[in-house]
Amino acid sequence: MHAQDMDALHLALVETLGEDCVSVDTSVADAHAGDWSDAPRMRPRMTLLPRTPEDVARALRVLAQHRQAVVVQGGLTGLAGGATPQAGEVALSLARVNAIESFDRIGGTLTVQAGLPLEQLQTFVEEEGWFFPLDLGARGTCQIGGNAATNAGGNRVIRFGTMRDLILGLEVALPDGTVLSMMNRVTKNTTGVDLKQLFIGSEGTLGVITRLVLKLEPMPSAANTALCAVASFDDAARLLKSLRARLASLSSFELMWQDFMSAAMDIAHLKAPFGDAYPVYVLVETLGEADDDRLALERSLEQMLEEGIVQDVIIAQTIEHAKQLWAYREAVGELLSKLKPHAAFDIGIPMERMERFVEAVRTSLAARFPQQTHLFFGHLGDGNLHVLSGPYAAASDLLEVEERVYATVKEAQGCISAEHGIGVIKAPFLHYSRSEPEIELMRKLKTLLDPTGILNAGRVTK
Amino acid sequence: MHAQDMDALHLALVETLGEDCVSVDTSVADAHAGDWSDAPRMRPRMTLLPRTPEDVARALRVLAQHRQAVVVQGGLTGLAGGATPQAGEVALSLARVNAIESFDRIGGTLTVQAGLPLEQLQTFVEEEGWFFPLDLGARGTCQIGGNAATNAGGNRVIRFGTMRDLILGLEVALPDGTVLSMMNRVTKNTTGVDLKQLFIGSEGTLGVITRLVLKLEPMPSAANTALCAVASFDDAARLLKSLRARLASLSSFELMWQDFMSAAMDIAHLKAPFGDAYPVYVLVETLGEADDDRLALERSLEQMLEEGIVQDVIIAQTIEHAKQLWAYREAVGELLSKLKPHAAFDIGIPMERMERFVEAVRTSLAARFPQQTHLFFGHLGDGNLHVLSGPYAAASDLLEVEERVYATVKEAQGCISAEHGIGVIKAPFLHYSRSEPEIELMRKLKTLLDPTGILNAGRVTK
Repeated sequence: MHAQDMDALHLALVETLGEDCVSVDTSVADAHAGDWSDAPRMRPRMTLLPRTPEDVARALRVLAQHRQAVVVQGGLTGLAGGATPQAGEVALSLARVNAIESFDRIGGTLTVQAGLPLEQLQTFVEEEGWFFPLDLGARGTCQIGGNAATNAGGNRVIRFGTMRDLILGLEVALPDGTVLSMMNRVTKNTTGVDLKQLFIGSEGTLGVITRLVLKLEPMPSAANTALCAVASFDDAARLLKSLRARLASLSSFELMWQDFMSAAMDIAHLKAPFGDAYPVYVLVETLGEADDDRLALERSLEQMLEEGIVQDVIIAQTIEHAKQLWAYREAVGELLSKLKPHAAFDIGIPMERMERFVEAVRTSLAARFPQQTHLFFGHLGDGNLHVLSGPYAAASDLLEVEERVYATVKEAQGCISAEHGIGVIKAPFLHYSRSEPEIELMRKLKTLLDPTGILNAGRVTK
Repeated sequence: MHAQDMDALHLALVETLGEDCVSVDTSVADAHAGDWSDAPRMRPRMTLLPRTPEDVARALRVLAQHRQAVVVQGGLTGLAGGATPQAGEVALSLARVNAIESFDRIGGTLTVQAGLPLEQLQTFVEEEGWFFPLDLGARGTCQIGGNAATNAGGNRVIRFGTMRDLILGLEVALPDGTVLSMMNRVTKNTTGVDLKQLFIGSEGTLGVITRLVLKLEPMPSAANTALCAVASFDDAARLLKSLRARLASLSSFELMWQDFMSAAMDIAHLKAPFGDAYPVYVLVETLGEADDDRLALERSLEQMLEEGIVQDVIIAQTIEHAKQLWAYREAVGELLSKLKPHAAFDIGIPMERMERFVEAVRTSLAARFPQQTHLFFGHLGDGNLHVLSGPYAAASDLLEVEERVYATVKEAQGCISAEHGIGVIKAPFLHYSRSEPEIELMRKLKTLLDPTGILNAGRVTK
């Protein structure tokens, strides 16, 4: 873009949003290398910080009129490079569009603007006896609009679903400046195409989420946590089915294979939880009422021990004790750092294929990259497997690992991203999970909603 | 259409599907009156009964080439006239596309064809220790594909969600003959636009659902049922919040106002459940484990009695006793018959507006139509209110009732259909629930996916 055009755009944006909502970085070069995973975070040529949902729509209209590419930014905690500016892009930040607008304290629904950080939202409703079940490590920084745009998951999906399941209504600004209001407030609404679904999980490629109506749960009074030692994946699957049948309050079921457990103990200096080592460990948590739920968990796990489905079990006696049990699972943060540069997978595998898949990938990676570490763990309750493999000095090795894993995912009829999204990093691999007619239809929808193609271009579909 | 064109179409369909899959009704007249609610069921000029999902797609391509309007038919149990043939339409029935294709017994996912009746599906998985939680009165006849196309609800939405929440994957035949395969098998899949959502609840206007991957629950071992007498709607809302916090196994929360309760007792010759009459009654059910769950329900309701949130309570001691408690709620079938011709509403109202809404509608209808009966009840757990009002001899009175109720729904920011859908009957009222930009986008999606406009024309959006 020529300097003159940029001036005209700048002027129009300042006129629309006000001077203090537009900042220009004159040092930003147009061209930039394309390796997103390792590149230093790119700076946009201009950053827009509108103050209201309506101003987001106005800014988009101006950008579309000038055919100016724009990247939408929430809390910048994504793992797929979707919010990283590409060469020549303007950034549109939702950081100031962050008000809590209304709260139905009787039914438990909350209306908020997209830029509200997740943790602020959680705290706000908890003070009123309600609970927003979405939770993830980036809670302090990630924004609720970004959670919606990427259909965030986390540890409690097995009970409460993903972000998609927690959204009743949305308002979206389209690139032509239309405000598409779909601010439904009821759980059941069957009045034609559920348009909001188009924007959940499509990573800002079809419109910018500006407002949300969220479904809350009553605040549970207690969490109960247990760590189970299990003899095989098969037994873990049996344990999952039994606990789901007996404990409606089951909210987490985190599986860790032995190799992950050892690596976690090493790096975080944790003691072995049991006298013996076991092939598989499962971290179980329920959320609900203190006494009845605890009793039900204890009785269920006792029976699983008697039936031989579980080999050993520790039930946390205090909140501090529960944290110690979660520490094995949460050592993943330190493992990610240690194994850099790594390949970190966030894949979904049908349960009946899971064990074979893990075996196939473990064998294949160990044979080809015997010097590297390959770890397996995940939110088994919802078929979400994480694989962490590294370190890889050569980018070509990393690419080979990705190709190997994704090809095996396709064979297993799984998906290449369960909760992190596609962004820029996984866009080249999308065809491993989505059929050609699907990708074709996604492109048609993109053209329908963003005819000038200014919005998050190059994300998801290339 | 001229006889000659019809012959060419008939020939092409016979060639595509085989003679035994195409039946022609030569007695059907082209023109027909447009009053769907009272009209005798119209007969289509031709009925197609393909045997495979692939043949559905082939039939659609032929129909589009001939620009022949087609109505998609499942079990014909819908309440919004969506599957009733309009003048000149060909019917495409899914009745023979009804195979159970595969079953992941470890993870609990089932792959079926769209024409499978709901009850057959339920029975099949229950024999294997799994449970498909969707349930509705028409279970014996309705088909799973129709349940998806209308996003069916029922009594257990509060815990398990609507049909949308139970669908992992879909295959859809588009009017151009494309088979759009979106047969995802995992709970979490964040790989771009979740295209299947377009087809769930859009009542067959965008494509024909041919295959589904469904999410199952482990079979609960027991249901526990209670009937609660409550002093006010406010207390019922408080009861709902407390029970949701304490009982994750809560699967039904059915509210009946006093006037409904009296009418139900009258028509079904049922005894009053309590010594006194109360303003509001709530039928509560949990699904889960027998002993622990029952104990938790008893303890929770005891505490609600102590706190004065509940005035009186009956907990069912046997399955027979539970049926007796449900009989009040299920008298609705007989009430529907008695009050014919009636206006039967299936609306969603935000909880904080519910009490005011019921009062406003009750007062307005009683003042204008003092001779008629007006009853209020619903799946309160999910904001779904049913209003039954009748009998009305004059069609203009019926229309007036509809206009009054829907205008009040709009004021309350509710929706005009929570679970029955829009079909033909409610299409004129769609604007009470959806904004102009939404309806405009629905029309654009219709043109994108069905450019010749042959599929379920006139349904949902006019």
